[in-house]
Amino acid sequence: MTNFTKVSVADDARTELHDKLVLTGAEVSINKLLAGTSVPFVHSHKQNEEVYAILDGEGIAEIDGEKVPLKTGDWLRIAPCAKRRFFASSDKALKYVCIQVKAGSLDGYTMSDAVV
Amino acid sequence: MTNFTKVSVADDARTELHDKLVLTGAEVSINKLLAGTSVPFVHSHKQNEEVYAILDGEGIAEIDGEKVPLKTGDWLRIAPCAKRRFFASSDKALKYVCIQVKAGSLDGYTMSDAVV
Repeated sequence: MTNFTKVSVADDARTELHDKLVLTGAEVSINKLLAGTSVPFVHSHKQNEEVYAILDGEGIAEIDGEKVPLKTGDWLRIAPCAKRRFFASSDKALKYVCIQVKAGSLDGYTMSDAVV
Repeated sequence: MTNFTKVSVADDARTELHDKLVLTGAEVSINKLLAGTSVPFVHSHKQNEEVYAILDGEGIAEIDGEKVPLKTGDWLRIAPCAKRRFFASSDKALKYVCIQVKAGSLDGYTMSDAVV
């Protein structure tokens, strides 16, 4: 495996990076929901924690029945078992990143994992 | 632990989300290097793979001595052992996300981990 991989992501409905970047500790997707649309299903996870970043737009995340407003700059952690569904607002696309990682998998990080 | 956590991230030099979002499988930071500046040191990692997303601006990643051009929409995976340093271009700030995850920690993902 090389020391790095790089891709340039276009403004598509969904781009999945796991295979493109040869990731081994995460799956990352970049997503765009058109105005007035939603992910067509509710889902949860067996093992994976998800981290969402709202890159642009507004919308709602329904998490275990709770409606959570979303706007640019918001970041969320969602526990594996939580039932979630994302909705764009009626007038603007919702662009977001979804990071899947195995819950509890991180040991050290930043200064406790770095070699400077 | 609650089923979700949420924060709104301001346009700061650096925001670290591990503690704010109570992450267990990743550390995520949102970073801004002002025009003409760089991270002041080279670093590598013991265990963690890093995924970088360029949110805005242009710059250079020096990875094991190779100069890799960066622009908005670029995504990179960097192996733990690779020596890396990020530079903003001379005329524009470089905004980027850095995701740290333990290399090799991901089991299933998307359809093999989801419950729909």
